[in-house]
Amino acid sequence: MRPEQLHSHIQTKGSFLCVGLDPDPDRIPAFLHENYADPILEFNRRIIAATHDLAVAYKPNLAFYEAQGPKGWETLAATLELIPEGILTIADAKRGDIGNTARRYAAAFFETLGFDAVTVAPYMGRDSVAPFLEFGDKWVFLLALTSNPGAEDFQWYGPQDAPLYKEVVRKAESWAAELPGHLGHVVGATRPGYLAEVRELAPEAFFLVPGVGAQGGDVASVVSHGRNDQIGLLVNSSRGILYAGDGEDFDAAARQAALALQTEMAPHLT
Amino acid sequence: MRPEQLHSHIQTKGSFLCVGLDPDPDRIPAFLHENYADPILEFNRRIIAATHDLAVAYKPNLAFYEAQGPKGWETLAATLELIPEGILTIADAKRGDIGNTARRYAAAFFETLGFDAVTVAPYMGRDSVAPFLEFGDKWVFLLALTSNPGAEDFQWYGPQDAPLYKEVVRKAESWAAELPGHLGHVVGATRPGYLAEVRELAPEAFFLVPGVGAQGGDVASVVSHGRNDQIGLLVNSSRGILYAGDGEDFDAAARQAALALQTEMAPHLT
Repeated sequence: MRPEQLHSHIQTKGSFLCVGLDPDPDRIPAFLHENYADPILEFNRRIIAATHDLAVAYKPNLAFYEAQGPKGWETLAATLELIPEGILTIADAKRGDIGNTARRYAAAFFETLGFDAVTVAPYMGRDSVAPFLEFGDKWVFLLALTSNPGAEDFQWYGPQDAPLYKEVVRKAESWAAELPGHLGHVVGATRPGYLAEVRELAPEAFFLVPGVGAQGGDVASVVSHGRNDQIGLLVNSSRGILYAGDGEDFDAAARQAALALQTEMAPHLT
Repeated sequence: MRPEQLHSHIQTKGSFLCVGLDPDPDRIPAFLHENYADPILEFNRRIIAATHDLAVAYKPNLAFYEAQGPKGWETLAATLELIPEGILTIADAKRGDIGNTARRYAAAFFETLGFDAVTVAPYMGRDSVAPFLEFGDKWVFLLALTSNPGAEDFQWYGPQDAPLYKEVVRKAESWAAELPGHLGHVVGATRPGYLAEVRELAPEAFFLVPGVGAQGGDVASVVSHGRNDQIGLLVNSSRGILYAGDGEDFDAAARQAALALQTEMAPHLT
């Protein structure tokens, strides 16, 4: 998917919502476990059916599938089949390894599974990121400033006016300029003030913004600090949508939670 | 496995060799593709049979299994079954995510698949690493200084006398001191001079050292710069062993390559 297509889908849907598909077997409703051979797939099916008109992206978190072993990867592949055309699919995998290994990961996510995008960790530098950017019309969202408490351990390391996360954004922008793929940055909603600083360094890029809802971030401050002319944001909610309800009508509750976010988003797109 | 058990296995075998199981379908011998339903599993089976008396650890690189889709995870699980008791199994996964996700990855590798150890990336800080250290007798090998060209992009960031990789080692040592799991550091063989600097910061820890062979590092300089009193090293070779031969006797060639490394290692253990 090209960036202008994503911008256009955002305008059409009045939404820049990304729904995180992090299915926790201990939190999905009990009736799914009792009635379905693959309760996680059925959970995802109903979440997608209830939210796909409100979302422009889905982001399965690989850990939740890997925790199920080989069967989890079957569930992941089957989940991707359920996501309608035109919605960006992001593998939240945070991979990062030497070049010959990164090429394998890129093949795993972009070719074997068919994702549009993957999240990548920057620690190992250019040759760990570049192979993901060698696919035209595929996307990398590179970790810049994350939403968790541990972000403070290393992401601010270095001079006060040039912390590590800015160096990551700066270098990554230069790599992306030379390669056919599309690069975005992961910037947590829990640190909205810093969104503006990343926006200065990457005026055109999409930001994937986790941390709204369960982690405490909110849409209005993400938009006011992080938007560009075309919005340039994908705001992710996972637990706040997936576990909005816990009964047989969990999908209706999920839709309400997604609708509440989309309703907050729409006015910023006019 | 406790550290004293690993030290003891190293002494008994006269080896601190870790064999990287990175099976590339394009490089494994053609006859395996022609004769086996799961050629990668058969490749791994023969490599393990040919090298297990010379190695103290095996390190499957997850990318090579993920690139095969769900079937790859079946191959990985079956490969683990082939590794004899008493040999450390390291999932080279380089995961790193927020706490609730890191707990899922830890469950995936330590419980679902049954690995002894996993490689973890430090960028997201303490809560992305700690869940892996909450399992007694399981291991984390945290990326410090990697063997690839891109290591230079961020791992030396910060003041000249306190580059990022040192801050990573320093903080990780303090986390490990509070948690039951065992922590080691990944330090590439291609930068032996820096092994000594990491050793100063982590005198007791095991170092997992990739980059010998195909990437250019050598055993003697790794030992002279990186060892501690008990050696404290796991030196990994992947391509140099796996692809030492390409015919029906590839496993004999792999054994010769592993034996050559073990022969270099043994004198350092007396």
